[in-house]
Amino acid sequence: MFKEGVLIKIVMQLLGKCGVSPADASVVADVLVSAELRAIPSHGLLRLHDYITMLQKGRIKPDARPVVIHEGPSTVTLDGDNGLGPVVAHYAMQLAIGKASKAGTGWVAVQNSNHFGIAGYYAMQALQHEMIGLCMTNANPLVAPTFSRIGLMGTNPLAVAIPTSEEPPVVADFATAAIARGKVDLLHKNGLSIEAGFLQDAQGKTTTDPGILKEGGAILPLGGSRKFGSHKGYCMASVIDIFSAILSGANFGPFVPPSVPWLAAKDNLPGKGTGHFFGAMRIDAFRPAEEFLQSMDLWIKTFRNAPPAVGEERVLIPGDPEREAEQKHRKTGIPIQDKVKEQIKALCSDLDVPYTLD
Amino acid sequence: MFKEGVLIKIVMQLLGKCGVSPADASVVADVLVSAELRAIPSHGLLRLHDYITMLQKGRIKPDARPVVIHEGPSTVTLDGDNGLGPVVAHYAMQLAIGKASKAGTGWVAVQNSNHFGIAGYYAMQALQHEMIGLCMTNANPLVAPTFSRIGLMGTNPLAVAIPTSEEPPVVADFATAAIARGKVDLLHKNGLSIEAGFLQDAQGKTTTDPGILKEGGAILPLGGSRKFGSHKGYCMASVIDIFSAILSGANFGPFVPPSVPWLAAKDNLPGKGTGHFFGAMRIDAFRPAEEFLQSMDLWIKTFRNAPPAVGEERVLIPGDPEREAEQKHRKTGIPIQDKVKEQIKALCSDLDVPYTLD
Repeated sequence: MFKEGVLIKIVMQLLGKCGVSPADASVVADVLVSAELRAIPSHGLLRLHDYITMLQKGRIKPDARPVVIHEGPSTVTLDGDNGLGPVVAHYAMQLAIGKASKAGTGWVAVQNSNHFGIAGYYAMQALQHEMIGLCMTNANPLVAPTFSRIGLMGTNPLAVAIPTSEEPPVVADFATAAIARGKVDLLHKNGLSIEAGFLQDAQGKTTTDPGILKEGGAILPLGGSRKFGSHKGYCMASVIDIFSAILSGANFGPFVPPSVPWLAAKDNLPGKGTGHFFGAMRIDAFRPAEEFLQSMDLWIKTFRNAPPAVGEERVLIPGDPEREAEQKHRKTGIPIQDKVKEQIKALCSDLDVPYTLD
Repeated sequence: MFKEGVLIKIVMQLLGKCGVSPADASVVADVLVSAELRAIPSHGLLRLHDYITMLQKGRIKPDARPVVIHEGPSTVTLDGDNGLGPVVAHYAMQLAIGKASKAGTGWVAVQNSNHFGIAGYYAMQALQHEMIGLCMTNANPLVAPTFSRIGLMGTNPLAVAIPTSEEPPVVADFATAAIARGKVDLLHKNGLSIEAGFLQDAQGKTTTDPGILKEGGAILPLGGSRKFGSHKGYCMASVIDIFSAILSGANFGPFVPPSVPWLAAKDNLPGKGTGHFFGAMRIDAFRPAEEFLQSMDLWIKTFRNAPPAVGEERVLIPGDPEREAEQKHRKTGIPIQDKVKEQIKALCSDLDVPYTLD
């Protein structure tokens, strides 16, 4: 179990050795460690090895300078200069908040970025400004549209953070696919099968084999099958892809570049890098803030106090599980998987950084 | 089979007899007939009887005058004055478009409105202005949050319309529940059962009995069960409820007033009427419009030309089924169910309007 500060420090030192400035490294470290705190380790330190390898191979620029390429009273289009996703995304959300502070709402489309970790982190930047925050991104293609034989879309997550008065904020943060790649890989590794409705095989038929992703299979959209509403998951993923990539000039759908170094970079792409989309809305652009915040508390109490289904403990509010994990981990420390510790140990050895996770 | 004009005329005449102005009646008629054209009859003329009964009982105001109660450079909050939902929603979307024409984006939260029919209609208002349109609404509670024993949310739909160049526009329009109430009722009427994963009983356990909605049951969110991602459908429905009701000051979740006259109006509500939320984004607030429109065409071609799953005909683009139905119905005429014709015949008799659907 590790304190937040220990993890932040080692991430910053490793990134510093790759030419990332302390300011940028501290953003990346905060995003990755925040994922660990919030019990989303699939988007935590596990990603550091990929980020660093991509930097070392020249596939991500360590000293990128994102630049505004288009602007209006409530909008910005940002070229991420092929920088680290968290650095670009954090800056983009600041721009959205800046626009919203003047125009009431701010909307930022981003091209030429990379994998950015947990979407909720950026949406939550809006909370301290008494704004609603939105964040979405496309991602490399693993998910098959309804009726498609092949994967064309990413797991394309959406995050929305909503401020409150006494209650903790509502933070919805979810992928639009039926299941996360990490969960599928874990089942495969353990020799288990998966229920029908999560994956399809190379013919486009649903399958129970979690190894199918390496044999031409794909993840299904949220809903699983047409009958259970996969066209709705497909619609959401499409909208997120279009907002992230077509508004910004990034790559869409099957053209999104790989976020991992062991997949080759693609050639002749129609856009630039990975795309994101951010939004910020001032509460008081719609209604006196105090009224909104009080109403949000009532919304939360109403849902939280609903009678649970027989056999269930309670009704959760979006963001409850992650916030409770964070509270726990701040007390007890953060567990890090052995595999991740080994990766970091090897990085420390390569980059001549003291390894402190023993 | 009926021509659009015949249906529009009879709807306008009936509404006219209830004190609705020709301008407002023509909006309602266009929205309802548009649902018929687009093969969504559950939101078409079937609703007219309820709308008129609500007008006659004084539960909807025929001569409502929606009024702006809060405004910023890119935002409006509108009080719908308890008017017909389509009239309020059409006006709200015009306001969003007006804001976007100046600020690049426009966002309108609406309180004190009523059932508005198909969300896609309003999102599509943005297309002729070369803008992206968004529309969402809350609705009376039928859907149980994940782990809840009772229904607390509506089927809370989201619609997004995106302009294109040569290709037809992308129009995503979907509810965030696992299944539509109308489909459940049809199975029940025909004495059929329903697969597990769509409904829960009064204990909160999934059930195959489509009659359960009248016995304390509820519809499940998109995803069906926690394992298959119902928490994601719940998150989406929550965000839509909060944007529609808490930003505007309308009623949220379990407090949303019934949209049908055979359910009693509720007392001591925390807000005003039903809530909606609209958005419009100028394409050229982000990127030269021609670039965006060309990229959208490429997006559509890429997805449309993907190899279909074995046994499937083709990959659909969001909006394809509705647009193809509309094209067909414009040629062949629009079929109207006997039950709906009988309702309209009775309304014509009551209101002294010539019945023309024989």
